[in-house]
Amino acid sequence: MSIQEQQTKLNIGLFGFGVVGEGLYKVLEHTPTLNAQIKKVCIRHPHKKRNAPAELFTTDADLLLNDDSINVIIELIDDSAAAYNIVTTALRKKKAVVSANKKMIAEHIEELIALQLLFDVPFLYEAACCASIPIIRNLEEYYDNDLLQGLSGIVNGSTNYILTKVSKERISFNDALKQAQEAGFAESDPSLDVNGIDAVNKLSILLAHAYGIITPPDALIHTGIQNLNNDDAIFAKEKGYEIKLVAQARKLADGNIAAFVAPQFIESDNQLASVKNEYNGVVIESSLADKQFFYGKGAGGFPTASAVLSDLSALRYNYKYEYKKLRYQVPSALTDDFYVKVCISFKALLQVPHERFDKILEWSSNEQRCHVTGILHFSELVKSNWWKQPNVSIVFYPDAIIDNYVPEKTGVLQEEFVEQLC
Amino acid sequence: MSIQEQQTKLNIGLFGFGVVGEGLYKVLEHTPTLNAQIKKVCIRHPHKKRNAPAELFTTDADLLLNDDSINVIIELIDDSAAAYNIVTTALRKKKAVVSANKKMIAEHIEELIALQLLFDVPFLYEAACCASIPIIRNLEEYYDNDLLQGLSGIVNGSTNYILTKVSKERISFNDALKQAQEAGFAESDPSLDVNGIDAVNKLSILLAHAYGIITPPDALIHTGIQNLNNDDAIFAKEKGYEIKLVAQARKLADGNIAAFVAPQFIESDNQLASVKNEYNGVVIESSLADKQFFYGKGAGGFPTASAVLSDLSALRYNYKYEYKKLRYQVPSALTDDFYVKVCISFKALLQVPHERFDKILEWSSNEQRCHVTGILHFSELVKSNWWKQPNVSIVFYPDAIIDNYVPEKTGVLQEEFVEQLC
Repeated sequence: MSIQEQQTKLNIGLFGFGVVGEGLYKVLEHTPTLNAQIKKVCIRHPHKKRNAPAELFTTDADLLLNDDSINVIIELIDDSAAAYNIVTTALRKKKAVVSANKKMIAEHIEELIALQLLFDVPFLYEAACCASIPIIRNLEEYYDNDLLQGLSGIVNGSTNYILTKVSKERISFNDALKQAQEAGFAESDPSLDVNGIDAVNKLSILLAHAYGIITPPDALIHTGIQNLNNDDAIFAKEKGYEIKLVAQARKLADGNIAAFVAPQFIESDNQLASVKNEYNGVVIESSLADKQFFYGKGAGGFPTASAVLSDLSALRYNYKYEYKKLRYQVPSALTDDFYVKVCISFKALLQVPHERFDKILEWSSNEQRCHVTGILHFSELVKSNWWKQPNVSIVFYPDAIIDNYVPEKTGVLQEEFVEQLC
Repeated sequence: MSIQEQQTKLNIGLFGFGVVGEGLYKVLEHTPTLNAQIKKVCIRHPHKKRNAPAELFTTDADLLLNDDSINVIIELIDDSAAAYNIVTTALRKKKAVVSANKKMIAEHIEELIALQLLFDVPFLYEAACCASIPIIRNLEEYYDNDLLQGLSGIVNGSTNYILTKVSKERISFNDALKQAQEAGFAESDPSLDVNGIDAVNKLSILLAHAYGIITPPDALIHTGIQNLNNDDAIFAKEKGYEIKLVAQARKLADGNIAAFVAPQFIESDNQLASVKNEYNGVVIESSLADKQFFYGKGAGGFPTASAVLSDLSALRYNYKYEYKKLRYQVPSALTDDFYVKVCISFKALLQVPHERFDKILEWSSNEQRCHVTGILHFSELVKSNWWKQPNVSIVFYPDAIIDNYVPEKTGVLQEEFVEQLC
């Protein structure tokens, strides 16, 4: 059997020629066995100097999208609205598509799945989630039976870099953010990372492949590290924890799924504690295999190019995501009906309706901050947003999701503590 | 599209009803969405009590192999000669086969690949390598382009359990082996584990999927922890290393592959250092994605059943290994032409032909042991076996493979040291 018989020759139209795009171009040039070549690159700024022949470039998207000899579109641009147009147009023209745009994919995942089926064409996006970690492919292929109990991951490198710096070097969150920006791990507008939006976009994509759940990311409870402060870091340290920003999903006893993105205390023997700086890591729990851990670089030009390349490689063999949990099983449903163990830190007691805790387990205060640890019904976080207000921070405990909790409704702080705080 | 249209209904003939087999039976009973059922189980001891209906069992292999309604054979027996007969017969009868028998697969991999192609039928064996870690599937699917620079893994849980105990609790190798046996992590005859044979069987399987290299495991240089002693453990500790039994392969500058199994000093920031007790872990290096790490339980009933289950799940969609590197590319070749940095420890200098080192970097001795660190041409380990003799141990350094080494031929111990030792 010759290579040609087995593989589809990939004729690529590339959108974007930043670090990832240029890296990809170079690898394809030097790796003829990949049987793929970039025919045309669509860019926004025609006058910028490029390390490739001038005739490769155009500013006219239609030149790529209407070229019948181009059978693969790779979309690597920042602008998610433009990316949406490129991807949906390409799918409608029955071109295979590879994208790394997590925001665009998360926000349109239902339509994008439907278009793939309608036009019977692959749309792959391993690079959109943890870059070099093949998490989507593993959820699709290896965890496609229904024994997946949960997943929890550090899926945003910028915030993990900041949290590592704060924990290790005891610098302030602000200084750590500055260092992250200088090191190139955070955008000049870092709010998408810092507020947990990037992480929840990824969680939304993971949920589709892990449990067949289609949900807009903004419908998922999420918060980032924006309100964490150095007192929280000290509080964690004293208890022997690290704080990490964790995206997680867990199957409850009734088969429904709990899912959210929030800071969490991580015990030192949890594999996520070993994920430092800009790295990503995902722990998968299945009912038979116990815990498994995937670790690698979650962002950056080369790791992203590596994931795009693996998608290209898969396209040569006509690989498609099957979305098996969604299409061939009764998909699981998201639920808010469970309890969680959290630590709330705040400046003024008035900010926190402490009576809504089912049970308060621990409280402390010093001149700067108060910390209350207790058990809350998760729907409280859905219904209200006091826990997201400035100067209030929330950190989930290890094993925060309490599935079989029997409410005690004793959630009121002792009077003397309230007096102390006021 | 209905489930029936998409999926093949799996009618299973199972060989072996030990922990894995029984676990699998229970999961399939309770998980109708898997669309798979065990029709018949072939066992050796008909009078042993089984937790399943009596009519399920037979001692007649042909009853399974000749049953046309059985389209999948799962082979989970210890006896590798019998397993070979079962698997090859089943493939010839065009039944899909799932096996966990690493020894049998490693020793017959070329024939088993040929039979799959000849009879156009899938043969999956994820459970044979690191059980619950989907390493074969990832090498097949995700690292199928030729950018894989190397892999190094802890692939044998028993020896890792022993090494962890020796390092953490400072007990002797013998006592640690006894504990491993008591904990069920080592066989009553542990020599396959301890001598590195189990690990090299797995390396042989990994090489087929990683680089398209087909090699009998006994042609690969391998040694285990059988000659390590507590002085080696102390030596490692003093240098800030852990000793791990590592299976590794690395692409050299000329495109050829270096591969072997041996104890290695591991630095604390290497992810393999975090693999404790009976766990397994594999680090994969690709030229773009840097290092990635896969971690999970590498043995035991449930993790093995989990991998078998994932293979079953893949069979429903007619998944096959493609052996892409072997079939669609020019596969890489194994080489002995490189240098390695090793530490040899020994009792008497006569045992060690120190003049065959290209360069000696460090030496020390105490009343019990001598340690020599130096650079050796790898072919020396192929040609001779002084380094495997009783009372001689070899431990590779981190980054042991030196690709671009310029020989200095200064490999003689200083005279005063020789005098000291003799």
